[in-house]
Amino acid sequence: MVVDAIQRVRLEGVRVHDVEGDVDDDDGGVGRGALQEPDLAPRSGIPHLSRCGRPEGFDVRVGDEAGVGVRRRGQVPDGSGGGGGGGGGDNAKAKKETGLGLDATIEDDFGAWYSQVVVAGELIEYYDISGCYILRPWAYSMWEQIKDFFDKEIKKEGVENCYFPLFVSSARLEAEKDHIEDFAPEVAWVTRSGQSELDVPIAVRPTSETVMYPVFANWIRSHRDLPMKLNQWCNVVRWEFKHPTPFIRSREFLWQEGHTAFTNKADADKEVRHILDLYRRVYEELLAVPVIPGVKSEKEKFAGGLYTTTVEAFVPATGRGIQGATSHCLGQNFAKMFQIEYENKNGGRSMVWQNSWGCTTRTIGVAIMVHGDNKGLVLPPRVAPLQVVVVTIPNSKLSAEDSKKLNDTAKAMSDGMIDAGLRSKLDDRDNYTPGWKYNHWELKGVPLRCEFGPRDMEAGHCVVVRRDTGAKETVKLVDLPVRAKEMCEEMQADMLKRATEKRNASVVTCTSWDGFVEALDDCKMILTPWCETKESEELVKKKSQEDSDGGAAKTLCIPFIQPPLAPGTKCFITGAPATTWVIWGRSY
Amino acid sequence: MVVDAIQRVRLEGVRVHDVEGDVDDDDGGVGRGALQEPDLAPRSGIPHLSRCGRPEGFDVRVGDEAGVGVRRRGQVPDGSGGGGGGGGGDNAKAKKETGLGLDATIEDDFGAWYSQVVVAGELIEYYDISGCYILRPWAYSMWEQIKDFFDKEIKKEGVENCYFPLFVSSARLEAEKDHIEDFAPEVAWVTRSGQSELDVPIAVRPTSETVMYPVFANWIRSHRDLPMKLNQWCNVVRWEFKHPTPFIRSREFLWQEGHTAFTNKADADKEVRHILDLYRRVYEELLAVPVIPGVKSEKEKFAGGLYTTTVEAFVPATGRGIQGATSHCLGQNFAKMFQIEYENKNGGRSMVWQNSWGCTTRTIGVAIMVHGDNKGLVLPPRVAPLQVVVVTIPNSKLSAEDSKKLNDTAKAMSDGMIDAGLRSKLDDRDNYTPGWKYNHWELKGVPLRCEFGPRDMEAGHCVVVRRDTGAKETVKLVDLPVRAKEMCEEMQADMLKRATEKRNASVVTCTSWDGFVEALDDCKMILTPWCETKESEELVKKKSQEDSDGGAAKTLCIPFIQPPLAPGTKCFITGAPATTWVIWGRSY
Repeated sequence: MVVDAIQRVRLEGVRVHDVEGDVDDDDGGVGRGALQEPDLAPRSGIPHLSRCGRPEGFDVRVGDEAGVGVRRRGQVPDGSGGGGGGGGGDNAKAKKETGLGLDATIEDDFGAWYSQVVVAGELIEYYDISGCYILRPWAYSMWEQIKDFFDKEIKKEGVENCYFPLFVSSARLEAEKDHIEDFAPEVAWVTRSGQSELDVPIAVRPTSETVMYPVFANWIRSHRDLPMKLNQWCNVVRWEFKHPTPFIRSREFLWQEGHTAFTNKADADKEVRHILDLYRRVYEELLAVPVIPGVKSEKEKFAGGLYTTTVEAFVPATGRGIQGATSHCLGQNFAKMFQIEYENKNGGRSMVWQNSWGCTTRTIGVAIMVHGDNKGLVLPPRVAPLQVVVVTIPNSKLSAEDSKKLNDTAKAMSDGMIDAGLRSKLDDRDNYTPGWKYNHWELKGVPLRCEFGPRDMEAGHCVVVRRDTGAKETVKLVDLPVRAKEMCEEMQADMLKRATEKRNASVVTCTSWDGFVEALDDCKMILTPWCETKESEELVKKKSQEDSDGGAAKTLCIPFIQPPLAPGTKCFITGAPATTWVIWGRSY
Repeated sequence: MVVDAIQRVRLEGVRVHDVEGDVDDDDGGVGRGALQEPDLAPRSGIPHLSRCGRPEGFDVRVGDEAGVGVRRRGQVPDGSGGGGGGGGGDNAKAKKETGLGLDATIEDDFGAWYSQVVVAGELIEYYDISGCYILRPWAYSMWEQIKDFFDKEIKKEGVENCYFPLFVSSARLEAEKDHIEDFAPEVAWVTRSGQSELDVPIAVRPTSETVMYPVFANWIRSHRDLPMKLNQWCNVVRWEFKHPTPFIRSREFLWQEGHTAFTNKADADKEVRHILDLYRRVYEELLAVPVIPGVKSEKEKFAGGLYTTTVEAFVPATGRGIQGATSHCLGQNFAKMFQIEYENKNGGRSMVWQNSWGCTTRTIGVAIMVHGDNKGLVLPPRVAPLQVVVVTIPNSKLSAEDSKKLNDTAKAMSDGMIDAGLRSKLDDRDNYTPGWKYNHWELKGVPLRCEFGPRDMEAGHCVVVRRDTGAKETVKLVDLPVRAKEMCEEMQADMLKRATEKRNASVVTCTSWDGFVEALDDCKMILTPWCETKESEELVKKKSQEDSDGGAAKTLCIPFIQPPLAPGTKCFITGAPATTWVIWGRSY
């Protein structure tokens, strides 16, 4: 077998097997070449807390603060051997030199693991502007899947897509001080075009309320113009100074923002919950990530709105909650601000009731954090860009004719799965060993690997391996399309189930301050009875900051589904009568 | 029949019928209310030239330079009558007050017609930042259709979607001076975030070569990494000072930009033409707009590229060509600039061959200009957001039961067409007359109108009216879904046919300077034999500017399909030996 001596490894952190030829399993050595490690965040000195309780976000310095010209680990010196020739010698040496796995583990340094896996999995490329990231096709196609699902669902509700400008005048942006207070420090301003200063600086949208609502006032005149339901898929910019993290927190990100107006609150409330359930489905049905739907506290809600509902996810590895997506009822607050009135059925004037709701590319980051393992990404089959990869196990002892037959059969297997509606591909590159390919596609998180060698061909079956469990199953070729589809569905369900079990085991109940911080440090969310005051929320933030090294806790949400609250139950922190259960946690 | 006395007209320029009751046709009066005309461009003093030969672009001052608070024409004073009550009196008066048509015609003032129709048709809303426009759902849904078509086609070719950042550092942008010279004066710079100055200003992408190609250099190492085919759907910003025109020329616009790399020129050339043909299909098959595929002159090609292919459209009403979309072969120029090299099959180093290709929301503007008429938009059925509108013709003499039966039947008709795959809707609003609805949907360019009154119901048929010709056809209800679908296809084909005939009649041949300017002033494109020198192109520009009031001519393209060029043919302007035929014209 002719093996190309150039073993360029495009990826950082890929384990390479030292074996060639007939490989029956994915167990291989871990080779390590010369690592040029980026400067990573300092690790917490307390082993117990090294996982949980890291400060808000975590330092990611790979590339984005390394400036132009990110050093790529694992580059094989070019021309390390001539072309052609057989295996052995130079090839083995080249392979060893490119042998890199992820060198961080989830347990020891989650931050480093995450920043490595998003690059090694070819989701992200770092960029020379801090906090901005390149979404590679492997990531973008998952965003497209989420988009397709959500867009179809909102269209059923009569929501129409539109596109409002990127820029907003300072007059528009600054007129709404209460709402914009939160965003003002993060707004990017364009002050110049070419060589000349603009007469008036213009802002890049951090969110589009101030762009859209003055126009709503023009478009909404009569109750017959309502409900009005608009959405846009676009980019927004928030020039944050918190540590940026790919997908999770970036200065430019992609999202959808829905903005709707109704004649009455009941319809608005109904939509808020319907959209929130679509967000829940994005997480649970597409990404296999369990979320807790609930309402935000007054302190945490959208500034200027009436109430905010949320789906809260949780990253067990770091013990941090993460806001998945939010659906706000704005009440009539913005209608008053922007004078969005209409002529009602009785001929009088009324204010509209408004909602806004948004979901971002953060969804992908959450799925990575929840499902990934030390081998790399583990992508939920429903959104994985590739659901099955077929890998042949060539054998140099095979005749040319039989080699061709092996490849042709493997191609037919892949095509058969494509015909059955799966996203499948044959990896028939002859310059990588099967073992290398196993690791590569594991790193990229492909749900199923289908191994196919000469003995399989003789037997008329193949071996299908699940990425999440490593479980192997022998499947007859004739059954492959159907079985592979089933396995994807089984894996999707199992991933959600396991993640849900893990998440459920991460919630503890506290009825007093005792044990609260210990639970936080133990990577838990905490359910407590609460009196719902802003002051007590501030108090908890302060005390949790003081009493531990891991950072402050906040309310994640007041879950819709609550345990019963017995009369006389006291708030866990103030001792006043409790009005609800609430979930606290550290968060991203 | 209870008619709501509030006749709020959301649209500018809608003709309203003065009749109520059983209306059998769409012929109605033209009412005119108080017009608050925006300040329009000065008209050319020469009637002969008032259509053709306007200066580059045309002044559009409606709204975008009117500042905040665009005055909306046709606003009915609110509360102009109580609710309830029957027809007559106040209603008729209210309807008259809202009776506005487009007040400009294509023949007399195309610029004003265009700026009115895009607003009256609810495609565009003007915005308080000059050159930025709001794409309303009626427009955005057409962009989505174009997107869906094109995206599906490029995915067949293995192109993958990705997303690169909006911002580009000055170092990156300015390093490539030859290419960026064209764009530099139009680049918008972010210099501030919140209250603080950025250390280094960052640019908003005018196009993404300088964003993407440094990264290509990292990703492309081996011939095995090629071809590499990426595309992104995004917004770009070019802070132009030429007159902005909705869809045609705006400071922010939506597009796709494809960027691909190959090992060899032949593959690159092949893709250039394949993509160009997809653009041709967008125009001809989706938008029913004929285009001329060809190659740009050296003067007109993409700066820094090897050659540019284009599909050129033409607006007969103004006698101006318009570049539809472009597909460039960049050669190895950018590979050299950005050092995008790879290890070839022989172990040596080679430069890649690159293409880039883009298509924008301009497509929609071209379709409006080519198909629209004095009644408003005429949308090609294939992309029209709504293909059929069903309008009932109620009769106050009908019993409540029969009225309901009329509406229910009409709804079933519309649903039946939806089931057959058409985009259909029933307009059963009881506060507008059928006549008003006819005009409203004509203004919005809906391809088919289906009229249905009590007598039609008795007869078991309806009357279907085509927007482009006004032709009416009686169609049995049972045949409606199939026949409506056929009529859409027929209309699509007829629109393309008529537009093609008109375009063909707009091309004249000149073999000398004699008649050249007259032809331009006669709203023609001119096919001439040419020697292909930049100097002669400059000369034509200069002479056409001097010899007429209508503005300079440029080469539109060297068409792929050419008449034979007899040996000895001389260039029409220099007298040197001609090497090709080329098409000249004024253009947007």
